Amino acid sequence: MASEFKATRRVEFSETDMAGIVHFSNFFRYMETVEHAFWRSLGTSVVMTQFDPPLGLPRVHAACDYRRPLRFEDTVEMHLRVIEKRARSLAFEIRFFRVEPGPREEVAIGKLIVACVQKNADGSLQAVPLPEALAAQIEVSPTLPA
Amino acid sequence: MASEFKATRRVEFSETDMAGIVHFSNFFRYMETVEHAFWRSLGTSVVMTQFDPPLGLPRVHAACDYRRPLRFEDTVEMHLRVIEKRARSLAFEIRFFRVEPGPREEVAIGKLIVACVQKNADGSLQAVPLPEALAAQIEVSPTLPA
Amino acid sequence: MASEFKATRRVEFSETDMAGIVHFSNFFRYMETVEHAFWRSLGTSVVMTQFDPPLGLPRVHAACDYRRPLRFEDTVEMHLRVIEKRARSLAFEIRFFRVEPGPREEVAIGKLIVACVQKNADGSLQAVPLPEALAAQIEVSPTLPA
Amino acid sequence: MASEFKATRRVEFSETDMAGIVHFSNFFRYMETVEHAFWRSLGTSVVMTQFDPPLGLPRVHAACDYRRPLRFEDTVEMHLRVIEKRARSLAFEIRFFRVEPGPREEVAIGKLIVACVQKNADGSLQAVPLPEALAAQIEVSPTLPA
Repeated sequence: MASEFKATRRVEFSETDMAGIVHFSNFFRYMETVEHAFWRSLGTSVVMTQFDPPLGLPRVHAACDYRRPLRFEDTVEMHLRVIEKRARSLAFEIRFFRVEPGPREEVAIGKLIVACVQKNADGSLQAVPLPEALAAQIEVSPTLPA
Repeated sequence: MASEFKATRRVEFSETDMAGIVHFSNFFRYMETVEHAFWRSLGTSVVMTQFDPPLGLPRVHAACDYRRPLRFEDTVEMHLRVIEKRARSLAFEIRFFRVEPGPREEVAIGKLIVACVQKNADGSLQAVPLPEALAAQIEVSPTLPA
Repeated sequence: MASEFKATRRVEFSETDMAGIVHFSNFFRYMETVEHAFWRSLGTSVVMTQFDPPLGLPRVHAACDYRRPLRFEDTVEMHLRVIEKRARSLAFEIRFFRVEPGPREEVAIGKLIVACVQKNADGSLQAVPLPEALAAQIEVSPTLPA
Repeated sequence: MASEFKATRRVEFSETDMAGIVHFSNFFRYMETVEHAFWRSLGTSVVMTQFDPPLGLPRVHAACDYRRPLRFEDTVEMHLRVIEKRARSLAFEIRFFRVEPGPREEVAIGKLIVACVQKNADGSLQAVPLPEALAAQIEVSPTLPA
């Protein structure tokens, strides 16, 4: 059963802004980095073209609390946890830790809620349950919340 | 007294993703578009180099609820409201409306909390009250929340 | 006959980098801003779904020479000129001028070459001539090159 | 002596556009990924704060030829080569290869020219020679051009 996943990335120059730190909007891109890797660890892409009609996971809510800045070439560890599992949606918490340069410090906490939708032939989207084979692999993380 | 501000922009091709809609992270960039225009309407940039030491307004919280997608070349109206005013921070609500093509529809609701900080000579940041001359121009919007 | 087009935009905070200037990759996004507005001035989107099969204009070459930096809240004027017209492709020159704060100065010169392709039902792309009704509206700019 | 460097990255969802492929502007961000890793392999950041006054390497020219599209979750290998070495500037060629899914195919060829500048105390930039200790580690790649 999968309920947590970790990924790391190094801050790119193009992700910084004139304040010398990672622009706050890029934390939301980082959240996807670890979430999409989580889906790959379950044997699927977040873009689920293996189903007919194809399924996708649009974001219905996103949030982030910023505690410390991230800077160019910092190494950031993203720790994703499943914090809610419903028939048609999942909620993830993503905690960000600067791991280099040390000492290891928490820099931000994010949240994503994604809905499972099927894309009909006419282009319309319709909320549907997450496929059983996938849902069966996912459980809410037992870790205490941050 | 200022408590609301509106701005519009047209969705750029580079802001879309492979789902054919504006990538969710770009709504946070759009929030800044209207917030920074709000500051200009008060006679200052959000980057307040007119003070010594200079002041800035880093984001400490950002959130967005997504209701409908935005697409390439849609015109979106962003409606900012001051929803909380404290000595050292402000909270804004930003509602997004697609105005073209019609009919006018709400597509998302965002929130930003920004703190007022001064940048000391040694590079450290320190929370300080918003300068009185600015604070005196800003009040919480009387409009009922969305 | 159309051979030139101008658009302006204000530099956004999220487009700057830690050097305090617009990240060089964003000039390519700015080039699209004026090019896509050029297409709208001819009555079409750059995404030509009015044709069956639909047509598009993928970029096959892009280049930029950087002379001066652009900074947050600068107003930049982009001046697009058609510099080459072939059956299946067009080349544009895009000159960037900072117009605020003054004095007006050229900051960069870009180039885009776009090909006309149709998207077949099987997803493959095929180079095709630009539709005659559009091609008939476009001519190479007589202005001397920069 | 260093004259070549390779890096790989996986295409992120946020880097795609509504055409279902990596937006052309993102290839310029990818070029920096491998260039900045090249500098780290020489023991320095591209942001050279170890010198006084600090040195930087602003881009004075950037170009890319696009041959094939890159898609979400493709693995792309970037192969950087030093193709010109002058006292105050360096030119890099960056070839992009899709390595997953196979077969390995070249998708684009980019070029960056960067100048070495020092940032004076008054904020002005001044072209200066690349520090000798760094220049001594770099030579033009003997590989035949693409």
